[in-house]
Amino acid sequence: MTLGRLRLSVADARDLAEGALRGIGYHNDEARIIADHVIDAAMCGYEYSGLAKILNLFESEHFRLPRRSMKVLRETEVSLAFDGGNNVGMLALFHAAQATIKKTASHGIALVSVTDAWMSGRGAYYVEMIAKHGLVAIHTAASSRLVAPPGGIRPVLGTNPIAIAVPSSRGPIMLDMGTSAYMMTEVMLRERLGELLPEGVALGPGGEPTRDPTAARRGALLPFGGYKGFG
Amino acid sequence: MTLGRLRLSVADARDLAEGALRGIGYHNDEARIIADHVIDAAMCGYEYSGLAKILNLFESEHFRLPRRSMKVLRETEVSLAFDGGNNVGMLALFHAAQATIKKTASHGIALVSVTDAWMSGRGAYYVEMIAKHGLVAIHTAASSRLVAPPGGIRPVLGTNPIAIAVPSSRGPIMLDMGTSAYMMTEVMLRERLGELLPEGVALGPGGEPTRDPTAARRGALLPFGGYKGFG
Repeated sequence: MTLGRLRLSVADARDLAEGALRGIGYHNDEARIIADHVIDAAMCGYEYSGLAKILNLFESEHFRLPRRSMKVLRETEVSLAFDGGNNVGMLALFHAAQATIKKTASHGIALVSVTDAWMSGRGAYYVEMIAKHGLVAIHTAASSRLVAPPGGIRPVLGTNPIAIAVPSSRGPIMLDMGTSAYMMTEVMLRERLGELLPEGVALGPGGEPTRDPTAARRGALLPFGGYKGFG
Repeated sequence: MTLGRLRLSVADARDLAEGALRGIGYHNDEARIIADHVIDAAMCGYEYSGLAKILNLFESEHFRLPRRSMKVLRETEVSLAFDGGNNVGMLALFHAAQATIKKTASHGIALVSVTDAWMSGRGAYYVEMIAKHGLVAIHTAASSRLVAPPGGIRPVLGTNPIAIAVPSSRGPIMLDMGTSAYMMTEVMLRERLGELLPEGVALGPGGEPTRDPTAARRGALLPFGGYKGFG
């Protein structure tokens, strides 16, 4: 099998993405929302979160379980708690971000949570949506145990992602970061492509340094920047 | 001059700190609040933010300017904006953190800002205060241009501090970090003690790597962890 690079226009990428998503059971509007997310990631230069993310979605154990409509579990004047209904986070958080924008109407501030959603994609996507409405946004998410502490051999913490957006006259100013030296999504892409990881970003299942993405998936990512990256 | 190390009990450190603070014009209750802050920092192992911080306070250009009482500039059901009255941040943010706790009573959430305050000390101190009341707290602050971008030679950004605390059954879980490879407060302490900086944390005024704290104060700090530390 030849792994040649295929270049697509945005329109072709969108057709391909939406078609694939409809093919695995998403409605038109759902397919559009997810395709928007992965194409935006690709356009930002995050190839591993681009169209390849749809393969990760389809292969997820969560995808095989039934999904329900999102539901409001609790609502106050300034807060909303959603049950994500085992939907992919790229859908659930899109709706939650829209609801966040509306929720700020009464007091200018809102706290919104989503449970039972998985694979939410780039946090920057949601805070950017919100900041485009003139709001400051902070997003964080739980993640699986993926990161070993400095000097450790087993994953103990998640990647502790945090994204912040602040509106400005020249568009949102954004920070979007996790604490790992490498993205697990990129490890998955490298595994798919049969490529090695850079030195110094991952450990294998026995705690040994590795460049093998398959070993890294069963082992741990390392934090970036030593103890300061171990948030 | 001999720079011997003096070991103090907490009670003696408190007497010394409060006496010094009263000596430079703080009232009893103000001296107690600032002394609590610097002694807590020392007890956490941050020697450079311990009693030595009182010298930084006294030497600050802001200290020589008149100060006023803190004043509420704007208040809603869920927000408070304070004018810090050119007070040292260790005082102004203490009162703001207390006000934050009260402000959450009506809707469970509050956004509180302080302008015209300087040298706020450890962000962890305030988020810990708030989390001890069962609240999740996020704190950030503006700072001067201190950090050069990776590959750059001049300071462009602040240290972009962020502190987060989440209550737990075993006390608050806290993250408190800036994006510089080294604390400017520690640079100031090293300068005072005539000690060199570690390699690779600072640039001199011409953009050259330096271990000289005086040169670093006129130059720039470097971000930790390369581009990922350049938030």
